[in-house]
Amino acid sequence: MNAAGRIMLTPGPTPLPPEVLEAMSRPLIHHRTEEFGALFAQVIEDMKWVYRTRGTVLMMTCSGTGAMESAVVNLLSPGDATLVCTTGAFGDRFVAIHRAFGLKPEVLAFEWGRAVDADALRAKLRALKGLRAVFFQHTDTSTGIVNDLKTLAKIVHEESDALVVVDSVSGLACEPLETDAWGLDAVLTGSQKGLMNAPGLGFAALSPRALKAVEAAGLPRFNFDYRLIAKSLADRETPWTPAISIVVGQAAALKLLRAEGLEAVWRRHDALAAHARERLQKTLGLPFFAKDPANILTGVVLPAGVDGNKLLADILREDGISIAGGQMHLKGKIARLAHMAYISRADVDAGVDALARRLAPTGEVRR
Amino acid sequence: MNAAGRIMLTPGPTPLPPEVLEAMSRPLIHHRTEEFGALFAQVIEDMKWVYRTRGTVLMMTCSGTGAMESAVVNLLSPGDATLVCTTGAFGDRFVAIHRAFGLKPEVLAFEWGRAVDADALRAKLRALKGLRAVFFQHTDTSTGIVNDLKTLAKIVHEESDALVVVDSVSGLACEPLETDAWGLDAVLTGSQKGLMNAPGLGFAALSPRALKAVEAAGLPRFNFDYRLIAKSLADRETPWTPAISIVVGQAAALKLLRAEGLEAVWRRHDALAAHARERLQKTLGLPFFAKDPANILTGVVLPAGVDGNKLLADILREDGISIAGGQMHLKGKIARLAHMAYISRADVDAGVDALARRLAPTGEVRR
Repeated sequence: MNAAGRIMLTPGPTPLPPEVLEAMSRPLIHHRTEEFGALFAQVIEDMKWVYRTRGTVLMMTCSGTGAMESAVVNLLSPGDATLVCTTGAFGDRFVAIHRAFGLKPEVLAFEWGRAVDADALRAKLRALKGLRAVFFQHTDTSTGIVNDLKTLAKIVHEESDALVVVDSVSGLACEPLETDAWGLDAVLTGSQKGLMNAPGLGFAALSPRALKAVEAAGLPRFNFDYRLIAKSLADRETPWTPAISIVVGQAAALKLLRAEGLEAVWRRHDALAAHARERLQKTLGLPFFAKDPANILTGVVLPAGVDGNKLLADILREDGISIAGGQMHLKGKIARLAHMAYISRADVDAGVDALARRLAPTGEVRR
Repeated sequence: MNAAGRIMLTPGPTPLPPEVLEAMSRPLIHHRTEEFGALFAQVIEDMKWVYRTRGTVLMMTCSGTGAMESAVVNLLSPGDATLVCTTGAFGDRFVAIHRAFGLKPEVLAFEWGRAVDADALRAKLRALKGLRAVFFQHTDTSTGIVNDLKTLAKIVHEESDALVVVDSVSGLACEPLETDAWGLDAVLTGSQKGLMNAPGLGFAALSPRALKAVEAAGLPRFNFDYRLIAKSLADRETPWTPAISIVVGQAAALKLLRAEGLEAVWRRHDALAAHARERLQKTLGLPFFAKDPANILTGVVLPAGVDGNKLLADILREDGISIAGGQMHLKGKIARLAHMAYISRADVDAGVDALARRLAPTGEVRR
């Protein structure tokens, strides 16, 4: 077995369908042509379908972090009051982006493994005045939780005029999300997770309210300036040379999602998550980390005394299976096994077996 | 013939070698693995070889414009005095980035088609005090000029303490450039031109002086923060998920450049430019736009009365050949035929023939 991860059970990047790999291997086309314009326009239309929005969808060449930064710099002005709800590493990243741009956000932090609590959010909103925006994760891959965005966004709109900004880098096209119906003003994502594509593209879905905020925002931006990106989009172009191959790959991946149907995609994730947890429970019997678990991944708390870093390195080297470990203070303490996007039931089974061979070699379940 | 450009004579993106297409079609590997770390470290080593530097090379997931912005936000502070030398659309872009971040650069503008004049630069530097940085293009694809960076950088260092910042998005690995020997402090590039790769990666080569400036710089940045990128590089990682497929493609393209040898690559561009100009001269006899021509492309001034936009659209539709038109005030007035990177002599000949069939259909040369 090669040293590389030949089965990827990581929560992004996720494995690529052969149709996407084929698309990326075609000779490059130029981005200022009718052919590319038509393909790009279709990607944007398909993304509106994924986002469940009639609003505006913009595309950028960047990582998910770039997409997160783009929302901060396009929606806010110096001195704006904001609230960041953090449930793990990615909420902390929103806070870090705010601070890098001179903003001092209020932070509502929850224990890792817990989702945002609706009552705590309402109480916090009542205590704060003049909030410009409230930031959430849809799913948090550092802990494997999912937030109830429908309820949380409703509370924000009841208690304030703040924009609801959602990082759905790892949630979109895996877990249900309704941009328009739930009143989400900006929803950010990346190409490399539920969208079943290589990393390199960021997307932002924007409500009419968010578009107005973009015009008024005072933070500096150029590369990520939504005004320039929206202006080019009207001509089926991007202001700067896009990652053409990945846009072509995205078109192929979206075609697959369209063929399956979005609700069927959600149901598939539901079923795969249930399968993964049942197998993990039966073969390992270890506690799950998340109290409010998402369908995208399961974090398993490793037995005391097990070196998680070594365990996962061994599995990668010996079995060719990439499983993610814990982040920050959870490094070495949990294993995060993804079951999202193009990851198959057979991939999940191989990952569970690889863990079981090392943690329960006699077949005896530890509890 | 398909509506798409099956021969690309555009100055970026440029056509991809089959080795690069093959590399991008391989199953994705995870970016936090030893396998990716080794490949990424090799890309950085190879880029130092291309840049001719022992300094630091950083990689970002972005367009060339993103790389340009990264230099502005990482090297400068609010209120810093800078000078932008502009020879076309891309110098103007440096100015626009400055202004977006609240800076008011001095601008030394030259007639389109002309390179930066050394005496004018020296005079300007003597008239200005306390400059933090001077910005140049290596080559300007909007006009097809090349700047004599060796001389220009020497003048900057003689007359000031300013950093020399170079946009070599379209020049690197086509025209000679010596980052260390010429005293260039920051050199920016993109993957999609001389580097023979798909668009989506930006690079910055930084001198020790530039690295010091990064620590002192006060402009806000997060996604493009060189400090975070350099810190991750020490672990053979990127701070955010990179465009993995394009990094793998870049490794394949750099292997080809290494096998050919950098000076041989420069000589090949020299020879292909001479060939293109001889063929254009013989078959069309139209004036060349650039007075200080680069080896990367040739701009041809179209005869009065010829609608350049229609001409190039016809060639794309009927012959499947992408040739770029003029930008800004040159729209419709010039054709820009690239002869760079993986573009072959046969590609160039096909492009010249396509122009000649329409502009000199009887074989008669217009002068």
